[in-house]
Amino acid sequence: MYTLYYAPGSANLLVHLALLEIGAPHTLERVDLDAGQQRSAAYLTLNPNGVVPTLVIDGVPHGEAAALAMLLAERHAEAALAPATGSAQRADYLQWMLYLANSLQPLFRQWFYPGDHLPGAADSIKEAARIGIEKCWSHIDAQLAAHGPYMLGDTFGMVDLYALMLMRWSRNMPRPATAWPQLAALAARLKARPSWKRVCEAEGLVEWA
Amino acid sequence: MYTLYYAPGSANLLVHLALLEIGAPHTLERVDLDAGQQRSAAYLTLNPNGVVPTLVIDGVPHGEAAALAMLLAERHAEAALAPATGSAQRADYLQWMLYLANSLQPLFRQWFYPGDHLPGAADSIKEAARIGIEKCWSHIDAQLAAHGPYMLGDTFGMVDLYALMLMRWSRNMPRPATAWPQLAALAARLKARPSWKRVCEAEGLVEWA
Repeated sequence: MYTLYYAPGSANLLVHLALLEIGAPHTLERVDLDAGQQRSAAYLTLNPNGVVPTLVIDGVPHGEAAALAMLLAERHAEAALAPATGSAQRADYLQWMLYLANSLQPLFRQWFYPGDHLPGAADSIKEAARIGIEKCWSHIDAQLAAHGPYMLGDTFGMVDLYALMLMRWSRNMPRPATAWPQLAALAARLKARPSWKRVCEAEGLVEWA
Repeated sequence: MYTLYYAPGSANLLVHLALLEIGAPHTLERVDLDAGQQRSAAYLTLNPNGVVPTLVIDGVPHGEAAALAMLLAERHAEAALAPATGSAQRADYLQWMLYLANSLQPLFRQWFYPGDHLPGAADSIKEAARIGIEKCWSHIDAQLAAHGPYMLGDTFGMVDLYALMLMRWSRNMPRPATAWPQLAALAARLKARPSWKRVCEAEGLVEWA
């Protein structure tokens, strides 16, 4: 049994989409970030970093969205959201999950919270993040043009859900992900899946929904 | 059969250490970053991002150091560098691999190449990276104090190799990782392993060796 602690549209979106695609029963617990609930003593016992998501699995809390996505893919192999261990595509799966996790997602942290480490440098850090994010979109768009229509080729899976969440995060940027044609096509394809409608309803997402 | 394209001390270090711990036969191909070999047409066919490492597995090139480390742990389960799929520790393993991959390692990219996206902001970005890196070390040191001596508790594994590489990268920073007592103890323990001596010899590492 799963309990997902979430804030609407935050990094939990990947985990939530995965649960819906798998069809795994789960309960949702909203964390009110504006009210600072992520720093409450109760939440910090679940997630010492004070961030969402937390996924409680059989009573044990775990964090890190991409790690949780990979864990869910392993625990529910029948949903085929990731190439099986030992398969030829496994390296590509891990490579793209890690590319999104360490090249693209951290730049969004800097885009949304540019003054976290050094408030006086917020403007520069935000602008550098924008440039970096656009380079990543170009790289991913080229991958899709060469090897699409999904991130790993013909088959939909976890890497697509991860890309979808990150694309949504770019919606109000000067150049959102959907300015790139292959990314726009991927977003349209993924947003047509039942999981997208359900996740938007469950999290109360209106923008880009 | 494995071929590892490397530059001394770069992100290949994690993959190289994993190969040595596994005892997997491999050949090494040095990429001269100062001479710009990573941007040569030959290398770009192996690694379109023009970065190290590339690991060629049965003739097929793959990238992303942390992804390669996870792949090697799966391909050589007998080396027990990662908790098995389905085990209770699997979530912790994925969580810490991803934490290092998306919270700590990207800050080193900004520490070493602060002007990559916005040259005029290099000083601010470097300083923000330093602050962020030190916060990560504090977080990891606390984890080790509570649940050490290794990253996942009593058992050595891939997360430790990843932490070791990143600790080495901090050696010339104002406050290197080894300024934190638990990290210093972890580094000493890991550097006493035969794999460390061998990797330093093979890559020609002198500093922090």
